[in-house]
Amino acid sequence: MYSFLNDYSEGAHPRVLDFLMKSNFEQNIGYGEDIHSDRARAYIKKQLKREDVDIHFISGGTQTNLLVISSFLRPHQCVIAADSSHINVHETGAIEATGHKVVVMPSQDGKLSPSEIQEALNYHQDEHMVKPKMVYISNTTELGTIYRKEELRKIHQLCKENDLFLFLDGARLGSALTCKENDLSLTDIAQLCDVFYIGGTKNGALLGEALVICREELKEDFRYLIKQRGAMLAKGFVMGMQFEALFQDHLYFEIASHANQMAEKIAKTLDECGYEFLVPPCSNQLFPILPKKLLEKMEAKFKFMIQKEMDDEKSAIRLVTSWATKEEAVEELCNFFRENKGKE
Amino acid sequence: MYSFLNDYSEGAHPRVLDFLMKSNFEQNIGYGEDIHSDRARAYIKKQLKREDVDIHFISGGTQTNLLVISSFLRPHQCVIAADSSHINVHETGAIEATGHKVVVMPSQDGKLSPSEIQEALNYHQDEHMVKPKMVYISNTTELGTIYRKEELRKIHQLCKENDLFLFLDGARLGSALTCKENDLSLTDIAQLCDVFYIGGTKNGALLGEALVICREELKEDFRYLIKQRGAMLAKGFVMGMQFEALFQDHLYFEIASHANQMAEKIAKTLDECGYEFLVPPCSNQLFPILPKKLLEKMEAKFKFMIQKEMDDEKSAIRLVTSWATKEEAVEELCNFFRENKGKE
Amino acid sequence: MYSFLNDYSEGAHPRVLDFLMKSNFEQNIGYGEDIHSDRARAYIKKQLKREDVDIHFISGGTQTNLLVISSFLRPHQCVIAADSSHINVHETGAIEATGHKVVVMPSQDGKLSPSEIQEALNYHQDEHMVKPKMVYISNTTELGTIYRKEELRKIHQLCKENDLFLFLDGARLGSALTCKENDLSLTDIAQLCDVFYIGGTKNGALLGEALVICREELKEDFRYLIKQRGAMLAKGFVMGMQFEALFQDHLYFEIASHANQMAEKIAKTLDECGYEFLVPPCSNQLFPILPKKLLEKMEAKFKFMIQKEMDDEKSAIRLVTSWATKEEAVEELCNFFRENKGKE
Amino acid sequence: MYSFLNDYSEGAHPRVLDFLMKSNFEQNIGYGEDIHSDRARAYIKKQLKREDVDIHFISGGTQTNLLVISSFLRPHQCVIAADSSHINVHETGAIEATGHKVVVMPSQDGKLSPSEIQEALNYHQDEHMVKPKMVYISNTTELGTIYRKEELRKIHQLCKENDLFLFLDGARLGSALTCKENDLSLTDIAQLCDVFYIGGTKNGALLGEALVICREELKEDFRYLIKQRGAMLAKGFVMGMQFEALFQDHLYFEIASHANQMAEKIAKTLDECGYEFLVPPCSNQLFPILPKKLLEKMEAKFKFMIQKEMDDEKSAIRLVTSWATKEEAVEELCNFFRENKGKE
Repeated sequence: MYSFLNDYSEGAHPRVLDFLMKSNFEQNIGYGEDIHSDRARAYIKKQLKREDVDIHFISGGTQTNLLVISSFLRPHQCVIAADSSHINVHETGAIEATGHKVVVMPSQDGKLSPSEIQEALNYHQDEHMVKPKMVYISNTTELGTIYRKEELRKIHQLCKENDLFLFLDGARLGSALTCKENDLSLTDIAQLCDVFYIGGTKNGALLGEALVICREELKEDFRYLIKQRGAMLAKGFVMGMQFEALFQDHLYFEIASHANQMAEKIAKTLDECGYEFLVPPCSNQLFPILPKKLLEKMEAKFKFMIQKEMDDEKSAIRLVTSWATKEEAVEELCNFFRENKGKE
Repeated sequence: MYSFLNDYSEGAHPRVLDFLMKSNFEQNIGYGEDIHSDRARAYIKKQLKREDVDIHFISGGTQTNLLVISSFLRPHQCVIAADSSHINVHETGAIEATGHKVVVMPSQDGKLSPSEIQEALNYHQDEHMVKPKMVYISNTTELGTIYRKEELRKIHQLCKENDLFLFLDGARLGSALTCKENDLSLTDIAQLCDVFYIGGTKNGALLGEALVICREELKEDFRYLIKQRGAMLAKGFVMGMQFEALFQDHLYFEIASHANQMAEKIAKTLDECGYEFLVPPCSNQLFPILPKKLLEKMEAKFKFMIQKEMDDEKSAIRLVTSWATKEEAVEELCNFFRENKGKE
Repeated sequence: MYSFLNDYSEGAHPRVLDFLMKSNFEQNIGYGEDIHSDRARAYIKKQLKREDVDIHFISGGTQTNLLVISSFLRPHQCVIAADSSHINVHETGAIEATGHKVVVMPSQDGKLSPSEIQEALNYHQDEHMVKPKMVYISNTTELGTIYRKEELRKIHQLCKENDLFLFLDGARLGSALTCKENDLSLTDIAQLCDVFYIGGTKNGALLGEALVICREELKEDFRYLIKQRGAMLAKGFVMGMQFEALFQDHLYFEIASHANQMAEKIAKTLDECGYEFLVPPCSNQLFPILPKKLLEKMEAKFKFMIQKEMDDEKSAIRLVTSWATKEEAVEELCNFFRENKGKE
Repeated sequence: MYSFLNDYSEGAHPRVLDFLMKSNFEQNIGYGEDIHSDRARAYIKKQLKREDVDIHFISGGTQTNLLVISSFLRPHQCVIAADSSHINVHETGAIEATGHKVVVMPSQDGKLSPSEIQEALNYHQDEHMVKPKMVYISNTTELGTIYRKEELRKIHQLCKENDLFLFLDGARLGSALTCKENDLSLTDIAQLCDVFYIGGTKNGALLGEALVICREELKEDFRYLIKQRGAMLAKGFVMGMQFEALFQDHLYFEIASHANQMAEKIAKTLDECGYEFLVPPCSNQLFPILPKKLLEKMEAKFKFMIQKEMDDEKSAIRLVTSWATKEEAVEELCNFFRENKGKE
């Protein structure tokens, strides 16, 4: 039974794994100070067109989020986020566990707008309330939507005017930057955000996120903080090698494109079959609204997640593709939709 | 230049890496609930001769230590440890960052004795001081020494009488259990400790420690706590597969034995050359006291760490072997000692 | 200019202050273990009709809230509260600073209903989300409303069924228990809540809240936790004496009644003048909706707080009375409303 | 039975209490923004001969210590202190509970020397260890000793050179600045420390410490942090009034002098009787070494604390005087020593 549950079901892209094999017996320096991590940093900086950033490899998204937020905020400062954001919903209170409130604003499509950020600022005005100091956004969002360059630029501008750090969670940045509607580049992101990360776990690596600190004042002593949170792997080179493999050429973007193309095929078929979506399809996560009767049949052949019950007849589900998604499986899924169309 | 700096310079044991390769394209359940993690748990339980334990795979030692200590202590409770312990010295205050004091007792050989634990208990008597609730020991210790069964039994007994949790850090448990002086088995440890871990990072894995929770009352909701600390890897199966490879047969112990044998050779040669040790050699970490002039020559050929300056003439160094240590390199090091003997 | 800003503008009730004067030169034991604290505890227990509770005197509301919540929850557990609750809005993230998420449910009148609590429980179902373990309510609420016995009983029942602790913030419990609509007694509250406090700061004391721990399992080591949070006053007897003065007879309730009566007079006048309220008037906090033009005049004679702008013409304000509110000032305020009626 | 147990057994100095009485019915602004707090600040600034400091009134010593340390350190930074320091021993891990390690250096007399601080700096050199950023000293120390101007100047210099904050705990600063050996003034302290406090609880107030922040960069948003830790009293004016009473003239120093004089009398008598001291007597805390047989008799007449058992025959005890210590009680104690001299 093929799974469209998520984008972290398989291991690593073969070229990433080959790289690990090939370098396995080298004696490397520990804790991320090895030559592979350095090379990976150099490759990424080249793509960012900035040499003046610090790059650290962290094992996963929640780890990176809690590390960034707890390192850069003073105890009374909070982070503003969409109510659907990963840090608010799906990290078991990881941010609060480091002492910080997540101030949430309602969002329909997973995105945060400048006006919502402004509203949060307006509300927090005195010392009896937490003080906003950071804005957290994700690209793609938890609903598979993306930020356009103009949107990001406006958020950047608002943050700058209000002395807020802008933090972009790029667990699925590969998919965001390679989808059709996208007009952002890695270079843009490094210009517009204070800190962000390039997700490896969900795009070809066994594990690892490349955290990029763009703002000078945030760089100091960051390795102390990585260590303190238990996020400094002894064999840091295991992440360095994987990012070297992903960024020494265009592998990272090629495989993200594949994920998007697979999703696009499915979306096109669903559209042709006349189904609607909870949010417009855009990246490697799709949220079609399907008849429950169809879902019953579907469960026997494919794995997927129920996102939301719409009414007695229909539910929105989540379908996710990845670098590893097989074309035949996508074809099979599309056929399933076509064949069952009208039979519900 | 061959490195005896530590036991985490190379990647994974080839049989571990093969296992990852072979299973790379399987679609696995995320977050450590996959079939490989389950199998690895079953293999380990068999060795522990206990089915009633919970096993979780965590990415590294500091992460595991902070997770265990912060999960099982109430805010006012502290952990008692040797002053040389990893949690006191080399984790950038990771334990304190979760809110808990580490109460340290002086130790000559890295070990904690029942009388030192008792002394700490005697000192902490009222509500103006933290309340001891856990004892942390490591095996092997940070100085490469080990606990004998009788020693561990006495600590266990003291902990039981005083309602303290006994936590054993087994980052180097493989080396401990396969060294000559050892009379403990995994089964013993699972009987005598409330919680402990079996280190993978330093014995054949790319990353991963197998945390074993033996005490019923400590098991509840532990996965929530793993997630909250950022320690739940999306691709948890990457650790599950590695522990499956290490524990489906005797690989884990075979490769730990190799590390010990390599260390023994070096220790024997150092002894024959008349050098003394900071602590008696026993496991895969050696702490010989060598003339500084010899160390100057040695630096050109081998990598090692200065542990402690003894006087103007001599320093104690640390030499570490691992599953990956090559016999030829050990031979070369031994020859170096023999050839330079008396020339300092 | 007379202030109706809040109920903590004046010092202590004269009989409380007299008590402090009279006992000033006694030599008392420190840290709340003195004879006055003991007597105060005995008087309160008598009113609760329970001997099996633990009572601690804490300096203020936020301090008590953060102490209770951080002491009784494990790191991954959260507290459910109304969105208007003090812990969510006006404590500068004090709860989050101790590591816990406040899960908020929308509330119109400051109260939390069983169905809202149930909804929060339904939403939090797996280890990727925080786990509800406590319900926080306040009586009176931040909007001056109160819980009826039947309402509290239902919440108690739901908490019991779901193994949740029920915590009642009684910063204004005096006003709640002496207002007209009330049908709860201190005895009821001690039966229905696991932990609650009886506010002194806002009802006659210079400072101090009497925290009552009703549930056996929550009592252990609580004084350690008080000390650790910096909440154990060296001269704890200063609070003990004040609660002794308030509870040795009916002073606490008499002066709370006075506050309510003063509020009632104002509410009656406002009602007669035809003004509406944001929430129905009930206790010592009133939230009338008044024409902005009237408020402009009012500002010259009285201090009050703007609660919410309703539209271009009107705002809801907050008027607060206390044990210290002077009858003449209330008369003056009522006259102001009567005289200006219809002139806006 | 007269108590020499501590300096917080009685209420407030009569002139302080009178002040509270006199101002009791004023309507004051809440949260420490009242006119009395402002006046108290102005009086203190005058004594400091600095207008550019921020002064906040906090309810107690542990509260102030945890607030200062947690507000000014980043998560990976630690505070260096003497092993006998209050923050290390007697605050139930309050500092660690905010996430920070207390790095302790052994001290014989309760004081920290520049060379000990330097040693701590030398030891903490890389990101696997916490990073020293603050030095904590107390004056008087927990052993009643004081810092001379030259000593404080050298510590200041070392801190400046190493970019460390210097924090002086002045819970007993009154006694320190009025004892015979002292050559420091409040003005000196405000020049040499980055942050310090002037203790009220142990010198005439019901409660309250005046925290003085001298360093510009530490001032920002401090009231948010006070609120967050539960340390912002609604009736902040209760502390403001007391410090106004203590600092509008020389009351604070007069009553501290009294405490010292009482201690001096006792010390002189003990010396005449030929008894030795654990540390040389200097301020309002004395640590004489007395025969256990004498202590048995003494227990029937006076309250005191055993500090340390010296051997089978003798123990060091702690005797504390305060603003409230009665001359007759001191006379009685001295007579006791004289009469029992030689009879043990």
